[in-house]
Amino acid sequence: QDPGVVQLRHQELLCINITYFFLNFSFFFIKCFIIKSKKPKVTFPTYSGKFTQLPHLAGTEQNLRYAEQIKKEWMEFGLDSVEMVPYDVLLSYPNKSEPNYISIIDQLGNEVFNTSLAEPVPEGYENVSNIVPPYSAFSAKGQPEGDLVYVNYGRTEDFFQLQREMNINVTGKIVIVRYGKIFRGNKVKNAMLAGAKGIIMFSDPADYWAADVQPYPDGWNLPGGGAQRGNVLNLNGAGDPLTPGYPAKDYTYRFSLEDGVGLPKIPVHPIGFHDAVNLLKKVRMNIHTDNQVTRIYNVIGRIRGALEPDRYVILGGHRDAWVFGGIDPMSGAAVVHETVRSAGKLLSKGWRPRRTIIFASWDAEEFGLVGSTEWAEDNTKLLQERAVAYINADSAIEGMYTLRVDCTPSLHTLVYDLTKQVSRASPEDGEEGVSLYESWHKRDNWTNDRDAPRISKLGSGSDFEAYFIRLGIAAGRARYTKNKVRNRYSSYPVYHSVYETFEIVEKFYDPSFKRLQAVAQVRGGLIFLLADSQLLPLDVNQYADSLRKYAQSITQLAQKHPEEMKMYEVSFGEFMLVTLWSMCCQPVRIMNDQLMYLERAFIDPLGLPGRPFYRHVIFAPSSHNKYAGESFPGIYDALFDIQNSADPEKAWEEVKRQISIAAFTVHAAAMTLTPPA
Amino acid sequence: QDPGVVQLRHQELLCINITYFFLNFSFFFIKCFIIKSKKPKVTFPTYSGKFTQLPHLAGTEQNLRYAEQIKKEWMEFGLDSVEMVPYDVLLSYPNKSEPNYISIIDQLGNEVFNTSLAEPVPEGYENVSNIVPPYSAFSAKGQPEGDLVYVNYGRTEDFFQLQREMNINVTGKIVIVRYGKIFRGNKVKNAMLAGAKGIIMFSDPADYWAADVQPYPDGWNLPGGGAQRGNVLNLNGAGDPLTPGYPAKDYTYRFSLEDGVGLPKIPVHPIGFHDAVNLLKKVRMNIHTDNQVTRIYNVIGRIRGALEPDRYVILGGHRDAWVFGGIDPMSGAAVVHETVRSAGKLLSKGWRPRRTIIFASWDAEEFGLVGSTEWAEDNTKLLQERAVAYINADSAIEGMYTLRVDCTPSLHTLVYDLTKQVSRASPEDGEEGVSLYESWHKRDNWTNDRDAPRISKLGSGSDFEAYFIRLGIAAGRARYTKNKVRNRYSSYPVYHSVYETFEIVEKFYDPSFKRLQAVAQVRGGLIFLLADSQLLPLDVNQYADSLRKYAQSITQLAQKHPEEMKMYEVSFGEFMLVTLWSMCCQPVRIMNDQLMYLERAFIDPLGLPGRPFYRHVIFAPSSHNKYAGESFPGIYDALFDIQNSADPEKAWEEVKRQISIAAFTVHAAAMTLTPPA
Repeated sequence: QDPGVVQLRHQELLCINITYFFLNFSFFFIKCFIIKSKKPKVTFPTYSGKFTQLPHLAGTEQNLRYAEQIKKEWMEFGLDSVEMVPYDVLLSYPNKSEPNYISIIDQLGNEVFNTSLAEPVPEGYENVSNIVPPYSAFSAKGQPEGDLVYVNYGRTEDFFQLQREMNINVTGKIVIVRYGKIFRGNKVKNAMLAGAKGIIMFSDPADYWAADVQPYPDGWNLPGGGAQRGNVLNLNGAGDPLTPGYPAKDYTYRFSLEDGVGLPKIPVHPIGFHDAVNLLKKVRMNIHTDNQVTRIYNVIGRIRGALEPDRYVILGGHRDAWVFGGIDPMSGAAVVHETVRSAGKLLSKGWRPRRTIIFASWDAEEFGLVGSTEWAEDNTKLLQERAVAYINADSAIEGMYTLRVDCTPSLHTLVYDLTKQVSRASPEDGEEGVSLYESWHKRDNWTNDRDAPRISKLGSGSDFEAYFIRLGIAAGRARYTKNKVRNRYSSYPVYHSVYETFEIVEKFYDPSFKRLQAVAQVRGGLIFLLADSQLLPLDVNQYADSLRKYAQSITQLAQKHPEEMKMYEVSFGEFMLVTLWSMCCQPVRIMNDQLMYLERAFIDPLGLPGRPFYRHVIFAPSSHNKYAGESFPGIYDALFDIQNSADPEKAWEEVKRQISIAAFTVHAAAMTLTPPA
Repeated sequence: QDPGVVQLRHQELLCINITYFFLNFSFFFIKCFIIKSKKPKVTFPTYSGKFTQLPHLAGTEQNLRYAEQIKKEWMEFGLDSVEMVPYDVLLSYPNKSEPNYISIIDQLGNEVFNTSLAEPVPEGYENVSNIVPPYSAFSAKGQPEGDLVYVNYGRTEDFFQLQREMNINVTGKIVIVRYGKIFRGNKVKNAMLAGAKGIIMFSDPADYWAADVQPYPDGWNLPGGGAQRGNVLNLNGAGDPLTPGYPAKDYTYRFSLEDGVGLPKIPVHPIGFHDAVNLLKKVRMNIHTDNQVTRIYNVIGRIRGALEPDRYVILGGHRDAWVFGGIDPMSGAAVVHETVRSAGKLLSKGWRPRRTIIFASWDAEEFGLVGSTEWAEDNTKLLQERAVAYINADSAIEGMYTLRVDCTPSLHTLVYDLTKQVSRASPEDGEEGVSLYESWHKRDNWTNDRDAPRISKLGSGSDFEAYFIRLGIAAGRARYTKNKVRNRYSSYPVYHSVYETFEIVEKFYDPSFKRLQAVAQVRGGLIFLLADSQLLPLDVNQYADSLRKYAQSITQLAQKHPEEMKMYEVSFGEFMLVTLWSMCCQPVRIMNDQLMYLERAFIDPLGLPGRPFYRHVIFAPSSHNKYAGESFPGIYDALFDIQNSADPEKAWEEVKRQISIAAFTVHAAAMTLTPPA
């Protein structure tokens, strides 16, 4: 009846302990594709340089031009198809005739000091037009006046301290907080919840100034006149604020601005530290930023899979930048570009991957992961059925120290195997002949848990969010990072300022472009192995291991309240019974489906409380910091600050409900790995 | 690399116009399995008879015994495995020491008339214990007194008429309505919304009395002392009211009764028409029904698929009955039993289906589709990934006239092909040698739309609901029905009364058991063809056709408001652009996945407004009658009674939003059928 499948059963019935013997099969390809690439020093600076000469904010003409250029070059590289995919989404721009600024006013209301309207433009860029001044995208408009209250980083705990310990009421005041530690949108939300009527965010040298480093252009520190742009939304995964859950196409219903998701209700503005030192008293904010529905463009390229065209492996990263995007995102876009070029070269030699590879150049990431989320919404049914994995390609560097990887537990083993086999790949001086794994291991060992390089949980703040947290597609990201023990500043000093130029990469971050190459080997290697291995290189037992650790940790957190646990009969019971998952003796196609759908099995269509688009029961962006990942987020949030709950009984009931949901979901996911009938 | 799949591509690359040439391959099996079965006259009365001797209400000892017996016999029939699957769910029983009844009270509050406490028991069953008296399961407790208001069938339009045209206020009164036309839970909801403090439902001879037919036992009409049991929940797909969305296992969090889903807040009671004629004035309800968490048991049997064990075809029907279940459900359970026996016989001859077949004997259907929904919740991830189709097997007969089929559009063609090929299968006298299709076509032609037997949309009220409306699994049901032009009574007269005995089937409904056999051929034939055809027999173009019709019909409905359409800029624009769907030139495995997942593509994880478990954008149970199916339910509900909306602008905005969701969903579903890369 079906000789194909019969033969599959007879010849390929495998009993596998999920080891990566198959890695060697495909490794040939990675070697030709990146490691043996002859001109890393030419392509990276070329790609990085040519897309960072002009500002290309989402929604601007220049960002469309770059999209067209990328499309053209991807076609030339030899992809099977490349399409431009537009959406009309809500973006936010400063009003050109009425600038935003903060003023100190005297008792008569006169402006006695105004913050600067722009950053000093770096040398060589003086004649560039269309540099958007520092602003908080999606700020409410307004000119509130009020006393200024300093709230440290504006974290949940900072507001708690102010209100509970110092008894300071923020209602009706303007708060000023320093950037760093958490996502700026969470600071704005906290300020709103506390009743503030405006919020100013500044870059403190303590957070954006590395020791013994000069400010740009003599070094890579943030000049005192520089300030960090950024969006201040609380989208919780909704994508375009006016079309939550659905793609922003012409037929799509749009909510009114009042009903839009995550838009702040108060004015918000970012300043540099030169201005910040002047603000100590009563100030007036002057914010005129406009929201407007704007067309954005994703570029989507494809290589059709030879044997499994209905299985997708995706490499995506954004193209839009606040100004030049020297680091964020073009250091990452250059990696995608080089991966496309290498893949095209292989295609021309007759190679074709087993599965379909999709390359994406996303738009409007800076405005709330909008381009990638809209495309995920647009293709939600296809992705749910067919997507094997998503690898993210935002900035490839944020420091000069070692590799940083955040990914789903099932990818840990693949990342280790890959970085071990990328021999002689350490980009660090004096480490010729050392594998990337070894170099990374030496610098960032995961000592508490295991003797291996540290891999972190995925949080949010970049384009993998909709794929991982909403759709349940195995996902990961890799970049080069700083020494986080020694360098305590947030992200990197010039982050989202006009000083993110090509030159800062070329002069300071990666003069030899070897670090970009190492990141390309990891991102590209993951894509190629996921697309080409016969058995999917996803390690289910590593997932089981991680789940046990997360379970232990959330249980310990709950056990800080032993009396309440007893009183309200809260038990973690069956929850901890995550056993080793074994898969065995299935035809390859069935095993691959099980591996692919394991991550999907953690999706609860009902979503997390109040966050319908955060549906992954194991991982979500922290409710207090979108950048950080939280494991068992439902239980975590239910336990948060529970000692101050107004209705403890109800609060502990919710803890019990969340434990039950987590137990069910882990159990249901495990069921998908047992033999199918 | 992968010879199996390569060979599949070379040998089985098909370019198919979705015709059913493959039907003949598998048809051999159907023939041996049912059509040529030598003893229909023995097995049907045996199976039907032996499981209807004793009452087997869900949650009772006797229903567990039947489950054990079914499990044992299915094992003997030769299934690969049979398991008993328990859940602890909220059920509802009359209080044994305080009976429920309605009394007429005089001005002093004395009871001057009481309704009967039980139905007269039919001859031969006088010594049977444990016959639950007529009651409304999940009624609130209480003894409200008040004036009685008659509200016809208790439909939305009946309450509208009373309140708007007759200006009668129901607040604080007790309403009495007749059974029929809509699901009784909707009547209760309408009464609650109108402010009633209790609701009595009675069986009117106009609705439960066929002309020229004697009451049971001399005929099949409902005796005057008989009354219809039934649950009065408004679950909207939640399953167990205390564990919505999750299986009712020991670790599962249970809501309190106050937070349970769909429980009525007022007392409800059903009576027969002998009692009804006495109720004309001020009455007192005396309702003591108790809710209690109770263990129920599904029986799940499996035949492992030879080639695609990870693809499931499911035949499920319930076992629990209000009393004996002569018609509902055991006429259907007998069909499942015979299908299992036949399949076992084939297995013993060396046959094995391509895909896995699952047989289910559900519990607690009568209490709100509870057993089937809990199992769907328990296995939600597996079903989402693997289920090809669900065929329902509730009562096999509700009349003596012809076949009735409700199914998803993609199954229409298969149903027609199957009933055409079941030659000489008409069970009607004088139609020897006539195909079932021909007999059915003659009696119920779908004249308006096409010259073929009528097939209706799936509504709800039986166990397919969670599979179809929540999970998006292609589903269908088939039974023998009455002539609905001539017989205007609701369902069948003795429905849910003590008179649903084996004898009423044997004496009146199907003395030769040929009608049961015809239904078995349809249900079993569907299962066997779905499990055994190489290419899945699902017709996507029939789905496209149906969508066009539904789109046309909802557009016409909206256009009853031309001025508002213009004023609020409501347009159906791209909505109607459903074109012919074509699938072409893919390997069989990929085409089958596309066919299987098409129905899934209509699921919106956000659900319909206020009905999170009704997630199918094309079909949902009507908001005004759970039994009926509504197409494009989101738009339909947004348009409902819109002329009386308090805020027309907001109401029309919601219409626009729903049109946009429908347009997106249809478009996204169509995308899943295009070549995968």
